[in-house]
Parts: sequence; C-alpha cells; structure tokens
Amino acid sequence: MRTSRVLTSFVAFMALASSPALRGENTTPAQAIRAVLDKQVVDWNNGDMEAFATGYKNSPDILFMGPTISRGYAQMLERYRKGYSDKEKMGTLSFSELEVQPLDDRFATVTGHFHLERTVTGGGNADGFFLLVFEKTPAGWKIIRDDSTVLPRKTVE
Amino acid sequence: MRTSRVLTSFVAFMALASSPALRGENTTPAQAIRAVLDKQVVDWNNGDMEAFATGYKNSPDILFMGPTISRGYAQMLERYRKGYSDKEKMGTLSFSELEVQPLDDRFATVTGHFHLERTVTGGGNADGFFLLVFEKTPAGWKIIRDDSTVLPRKTVE
Repeated sequence: MRTSRVLTSFVAFMALASSPALRGENTTPAQAIRAVLDKQVVDWNNGDMEAFATGYKNSPDILFMGPTISRGYAQMLERYRKGYSDKEKMGTLSFSELEVQPLDDRFATVTGHFHLERTVTGGGNADGFFLLVFEKTPAGWKIIRDDSTVLPRKTVE
Repeated sequence: MRTSRVLTSFVAFMALASSPALRGENTTPAQAIRAVLDKQVVDWNNGDMEAFATGYKNSPDILFMGPTISRGYAQMLERYRKGYSDKEKMGTLSFSELEVQPLDDRFATVTGHFHLERTVTGGGNADGFFLLVFEKTPAGWKIIRDDSTVLPRKTVE
C-alpha cells in the first residue's frame, strides 16, 4: 500500500517535472501557476518540505501571513518546519476551488481552499483558504505573498 | 461629546479630501495607498458604508475573501451591509502595523491588522489581519483583492 503510494507520487512527480507547464513553455500564466501548485502538493505529500518551499520566491521580501507575519524565504521555511516537523504532521494535502487571476504579465493572484488529511496524532484534519500573489521570476512563477487561514474545526476530536 | 466627534470626523475628512496624497499628486504609491486606507477609516467611523466601499475598485472581478469568496463590487458591498447593518455594529475602526509594498507601477500589496471597538450589543470588539492587493486605476489606487481574517476572541463576553 505504502509502496504503491510512493510509486504513484513518483510517477506524478516525473509527469510534472517533465511537463511543459512547469517549465513555462507554450502555456498560459494560469497553466504555469497551476503546475507550480500541483508540484507543491506532490512535494508536500512526499514529505519533502524543501522542494515544497521552492514554490515560493527565494527572497527576503516575501510575506507569509497568519496571526503573525513571517518575512522572507528562510523564516517561511522555518515556520513550515516547526508547524509540520514530520510526515505525520504534514499529512496529505489537497487544494480545491483554485482560481488563478492574472493581473498583468508579471503578477497574478490565486485563491483557493486547502485540506489536510491527517491522523489524530498528526494533529487531525485541517481546512482553510488562502490568497496568494504570484510573481513571474527568472526561475518561473513563484509565490511572493501568502495569506492562509485555518478554519475552526467543525467537530471536536 | 457626539457633536465633537462628528466635528472631528468632518475636519479629518476635509483634511483628507483635500490632501494631495488622496488626489495622487506628488506622492509615492505608498503615500497614496495609505491615504485611501486613512479615508476608509474616516468613512467607516462616520457610518458611511457607501463612501468606505469606494476604496475598492468598482469592478465585477474584485475578490473579497473570508470562509467564502465574494466576487465583485456589488456583492462586496452587500456583504458589508449585512454584516454591519448599523452604526453600532460598525463600531470604531482602526488599522495598525500597515505595510505597503509596491510590486510595480500598477500593483501593490498591503498587510496590516484591524481593530473594531464596539459595544457588546454591537457585537463586541473584533481584531484581525488582512492582505490587500491594490491596483492603480484611472480613479486612483483601489483594492482589488481583500483577504481579511477575524481572529478568535481572547475573552468570552
């Protein structure tokens, strides 16, 4: 079961890594941005936080918001590492209701919902929504602002 | 007391309405954007929702996020009208920790915290944070994306 899941993730990753969308060739900005988010989901579900983080721009100016604001790539990565210190706490991520709205050639916003499927010891399931701002950088479309909100739990676990 | 507050608001409004920043003359984008937010605070605290709403771009494409997404100026205004149907529910608004980050000549993001000072019957105090995306339109800098999150209450009222 576990082997088959790893294999599925690997196949999905290779499909994404070789996709024209991720390389930004012959694709619309919306397709290229969705490919970045799809790759983030695969990386997260492989427990690979370093790879997941490359969806963000490697810059000291990026902002990662919640009740407090983290500034810069290093602080963002540290916050993710603290909040999701192992595979069980990372759980299985999925995005839904994604909407990409290009602003101009260089910027776009994305709104959507996230769902984390987790064991009770991993922290339990979590749901929330987000507004992202993407910038087209020399390294491809990258997240430069992330305002993610975790919704209150519906049931007590 | 009430008269003096109305007078103060009026004086603040006139000062803002005649400010070069609000007219976008000889000001940086950050100054012009802060002037829009300052005017929104004055309008809100005057109970003038219609004026407050003009801080947003009058477009069907704008997004106003919370647990659900509202799309367009009309829906945004309706949501505000429903949630804050009278002066007591609107309370007294203030922004803090505002940070304006221009992206290019046409777009900027703003992060900050809001505080609503309200009577218990008005709904009680509320605090939260937000990420806004501003666009420089022919009518001046306007909000085109608003992801505002109300923080859980610290004390039970």
